[in-house]
Amino acid sequence: MFLAEKGIDMEYVQVDIQKGENLSAEMRAKNPLGKVPVLELDDGTCIAETDAICTYFEALQPQPSLMGTSPLEKATIAMWQRQVELALMLQVGMCFQHTTGYFKDRMLPVPEYGKEAGVNASKYLNILERRLELNDYIAGPRFSIADITALCAIDFARVVDIRLTEKHKNLNAWYQKVSQRESAKA
Amino acid sequence: MFLAEKGIDMEYVQVDIQKGENLSAEMRAKNPLGKVPVLELDDGTCIAETDAICTYFEALQPQPSLMGTSPLEKATIAMWQRQVELALMLQVGMCFQHTTGYFKDRMLPVPEYGKEAGVNASKYLNILERRLELNDYIAGPRFSIADITALCAIDFARVVDIRLTEKHKNLNAWYQKVSQRESAKA
Repeated sequence: MFLAEKGIDMEYVQVDIQKGENLSAEMRAKNPLGKVPVLELDDGTCIAETDAICTYFEALQPQPSLMGTSPLEKATIAMWQRQVELALMLQVGMCFQHTTGYFKDRMLPVPEYGKEAGVNASKYLNILERRLELNDYIAGPRFSIADITALCAIDFARVVDIRLTEKHKNLNAWYQKVSQRESAKA
Repeated sequence: MFLAEKGIDMEYVQVDIQKGENLSAEMRAKNPLGKVPVLELDDGTCIAETDAICTYFEALQPQPSLMGTSPLEKATIAMWQRQVELALMLQVGMCFQHTTGYFKDRMLPVPEYGKEAGVNASKYLNILERRLELNDYIAGPRFSIADITALCAIDFARVVDIRLTEKHKNLNAWYQKVSQRESAKA
């Protein structure tokens, strides 16, 4: 979605994480943590971590800006991006990994912790709901990477049955607006 | 340490997190997640999240650069910074919170998960050890924010008894070098 907003073409190679293809020696040579996505440049240089890959393309092609232009805007977007990642996306991921046992061949699920992570994620939706009372987008007046991360996290949250409800009035309006962007089809 | 590297003065206000001063209504107005640090500007604008605060000062005063200058250097530093944060600092923090019960007045410790987080942190030290075989600093040839985060995480890890050992030859040499910087006294 970030690349689509910037109109950057990309060749995608699917890696089957359920089968553990991301943990092969070949993939670990590209990213020691064995996680996806990994951006591989023509010279073989690899950049892992979604946020780092976005940082690369934001620097390479600053417009349209998704990570801010002034120091304060950059910092504000970085703050919301990070809080959405840590307090929502990561919590949904931990809830998924620890309550479903989807990766139990490679990690020890601790369901009690998974449930706690799910509660954390639900609580953060209320923080976003209040944030969107006075702001059109999560990081402020402009659409940014934080909106993309929040959209993906909210979509992902359905797998652990965490959903927006009627009380999330602002979040629902924001969700409609953001998910209808052309880039959301990417 | 980041500010000291850039020679930026700052007025610090201590917040007692053990007493939960970070969870007051006043602090939540500055940062809804109730976490520290928070940078408060003269006009009252608040920026939370260490990485976002560093992003602000890097944009405001780019030299000496601690987050990279070219697109590839920015992305490489962002990748290592993030992996050190998520695979080391966060894991040490989770191990601390879930095994010691330090914050049990405000969260449910799950010791089994805490132990797993500690194992994750120890494993990541081995990735850093291999990384430093061919690189002077964590993100490459230059000192960066990733070295600061790793230094702080390794120092913090002592509270859960995770330490560098004799087998961490490269990491020990790097630790000596980085901890002897003038900024490490900050």
